[in-house]
Amino acid sequence: MQRLKDSIDGVNSPAAIGLDTREDYLPEGVSGVMEFNRGIIDSICGITAVVKIQIAMYEERGLQGIKDFFDTAEYAKQKSLFVIADIKRGDIGDTAKSYSNAYLSRECIDLITLNPYLGYDSLEPFFEDCDRFDKGVFILVKTSNRGSADIQGLLVDGKPLYEVVAEKTAEWGRGHMDGEYSRIGGVAGATHPDELRAVRSIMDRSYLLIPGYGAQGGTAGDIAGALDGNRDGILINSSRRVLLAYRESGRDYRDAARDEVLRMREEINHAFENCGKNR
Amino acid sequence: MQRLKDSIDGVNSPAAIGLDTREDYLPEGVSGVMEFNRGIIDSICGITAVVKIQIAMYEERGLQGIKDFFDTAEYAKQKSLFVIADIKRGDIGDTAKSYSNAYLSRECIDLITLNPYLGYDSLEPFFEDCDRFDKGVFILVKTSNRGSADIQGLLVDGKPLYEVVAEKTAEWGRGHMDGEYSRIGGVAGATHPDELRAVRSIMDRSYLLIPGYGAQGGTAGDIAGALDGNRDGILINSSRRVLLAYRESGRDYRDAARDEVLRMREEINHAFENCGKNR
Repeated sequence: MQRLKDSIDGVNSPAAIGLDTREDYLPEGVSGVMEFNRGIIDSICGITAVVKIQIAMYEERGLQGIKDFFDTAEYAKQKSLFVIADIKRGDIGDTAKSYSNAYLSRECIDLITLNPYLGYDSLEPFFEDCDRFDKGVFILVKTSNRGSADIQGLLVDGKPLYEVVAEKTAEWGRGHMDGEYSRIGGVAGATHPDELRAVRSIMDRSYLLIPGYGAQGGTAGDIAGALDGNRDGILINSSRRVLLAYRESGRDYRDAARDEVLRMREEINHAFENCGKNR
Repeated sequence: MQRLKDSIDGVNSPAAIGLDTREDYLPEGVSGVMEFNRGIIDSICGITAVVKIQIAMYEERGLQGIKDFFDTAEYAKQKSLFVIADIKRGDIGDTAKSYSNAYLSRECIDLITLNPYLGYDSLEPFFEDCDRFDKGVFILVKTSNRGSADIQGLLVDGKPLYEVVAEKTAEWGRGHMDGEYSRIGGVAGATHPDELRAVRSIMDRSYLLIPGYGAQGGTAGDIAGALDGNRDGILINSSRRVLLAYRESGRDYRDAARDEVLRMREEINHAFENCGKNR
């Protein structure tokens, strides 16, 4: 996670650009998802450190989609970007180990997302591989959707379940430190600022991956409360606003994406400065 | 689910045979996973109604693995078996819809497993596709692993979380009935018989998919408490004991698998008769 922190500092931006490319996102003249993704990656590398690839949109397109998923990860890795595979897997024992082999053991993937519902022994094989391969995971703690309240918001001894999950994740994470941060981070949505702040106060040694900025309505100000004691420790995901920026401006999709990433960086750094963030 | 019930009744067995084939499961002389899976399917069709394919072992092998996953599902479907894709996916809104397109919209897949941690709106796209395509889902309620207690066992107003998930799943399921049963079932492990009984009493109109029989230690007697008011409504998964039966007997893997499926059917029906089950 020290490498991740250095990369984020190097570009002065905690953005994780989501390459959740659907075929109907492609502008006229672009032949396929890979051409589009390569164009986006070329245009944003140097101003962002991290990309997040949501595997569902690739699984939806069958074998060609899966090929594109890994090709995208490899292309991003060649460009020295950190790659988050947003897979949200969760299964027991041997099966978890198979999923870990499928993703964490690959050089082109640095970080993955995981679902905690099946408990510690379903996560342990991934934690072990994090240490082995110098990788990291983000456990779903409080997701950005409205329905996240249904299960994650249930009260366990007067505390919402997501806080208990945050406590357990923080505890598991203490056994897997890498520099200042744990290899075990959390996912908490920008759309619930108070809950995001609560998760941060519990997971004080972890990176938080924060979806919900931009198209889902979360603002940079909403996210400022997730900064840690070093005013650091976050990744902010934006997908559609970057990939589809060309539709509003009518410009080349690569230029429009780059400008949106620069705008996002400025907005985030401005909001964080106003809260005393010293980038 | 009426078709499922008729098929189960037709073979007089609630078994769902798990095709969780790893490459190191293959006996000498078998060239690959597909040859092995076809051999198993040929040998068990007619005596079992359902197969369950755990996708993790296929994802582990990359593109060839994914191809084998869908080829296995298609081959099983050609042989008139019901196919459960054990994918345990869970994600928000548009992403959930992509996952549903990837699996439920395919003719070769009848049923899938899902993770409830992200709440109702993460499941709704699947529920809608169940009605549209005459399919079904199993929501993870109480899994068979020891670590399932970590999150699923937390007390919510004095009740374990898995009971609350069972209540919600039963409530969601009432809007998606197909004959006597809901299209929305649950997963509850054979390794926790009391909890399995509790889940059944809550989810009285749903199929329960029960892992943990056989290699994981659950017995047919442990499962009898999961029978519903009609002494029905369950699917019992067995994987390794069937796929690896040849190793104990030294016989052809297909004959050994078939005999294990017959033995399992007899054991289950005997245990259920002892509890008044009238098959």
